[in-house]
Amino acid sequence: MPSPQDYMQLALIEAQKAAQIDEIPVGCVIVNPATDEIIAAAHNHNQHSFDTTAHAEILAIRSACDVLQQPRLWDMDIYVTLEPCAMCAAAISFARIRRLYFGAFDEKGGNVVNGTQFFNQKICHHKPEVYGGILQEPCSQILKRFFQAKR
Amino acid sequence: MPSPQDYMQLALIEAQKAAQIDEIPVGCVIVNPATDEIIAAAHNHNQHSFDTTAHAEILAIRSACDVLQQPRLWDMDIYVTLEPCAMCAAAISFARIRRLYFGAFDEKGGNVVNGTQFFNQKICHHKPEVYGGILQEPCSQILKRFFQAKR
Repeated sequence: MPSPQDYMQLALIEAQKAAQIDEIPVGCVIVNPATDEIIAAAHNHNQHSFDTTAHAEILAIRSACDVLQQPRLWDMDIYVTLEPCAMCAAAISFARIRRLYFGAFDEKGGNVVNGTQFFNQKICHHKPEVYGGILQEPCSQILKRFFQAKR
Repeated sequence: MPSPQDYMQLALIEAQKAAQIDEIPVGCVIVNPATDEIIAAAHNHNQHSFDTTAHAEILAIRSACDVLQQPRLWDMDIYVTLEPCAMCAAAISFARIRRLYFGAFDEKGGNVVNGTQFFNQKICHHKPEVYGGILQEPCSQILKRFFQAKR
């Protein structure tokens, strides 16, 4: 049976794809834990698709909704290499995702354990189980390398 | 020269389109204030497109980015019939939108003047000018009628 680290490795491969096309390297997969099936995989694509909402999580959620032909992702788990921002945390909640696993922590833009911690707010009507720091080191390193190369 | 109420009226027409197909009636337009051109118009489409992220604002932002072929909407204004939620407020900030005009206030899910007020948070890196309560009464009524009919 695959471990959370195995799925995060797949999310990291997505992040590498982003880095290869000069997008901020964040990757995401959505898994059906009952069948171990990968329902969707995506990476950051803002610049190439001219879409400011094209974060890895939003793209993966939209793809998974499309694959399953349903607007909610009850019982699905999401793996993302970086702590979700306010937009993506809210989308994860709206999608009714069961568990969120993330890799690196994001003090500047994260809104799960950082920021206003969306899932703990009164306006949040579904809170997934949250597991942070999965493969934290490689998830963090790929971002550091990307931004260092920009300087 | 069109007034904010004129543009909100167009957003209300979008909300009516949503109601007609049994989607929660929220509508949105994005305007270039320099030319008075409507860049994008959209309404809530969650259920029909099987997309939990398909709020009016997200669809309008994606459409405007696509029309302009740019991932940012500097100098554009957004009109939405309901106070944006956490997801949409963050997307509006990421898109670098100049001004947000909204109609009804949303105590349960809004995150502009309600909730954690995203634009006032440290994790928010661009704050639009905000004008709430534009055509508040009809924007609120269309939602009330929709939910009353559901009971």
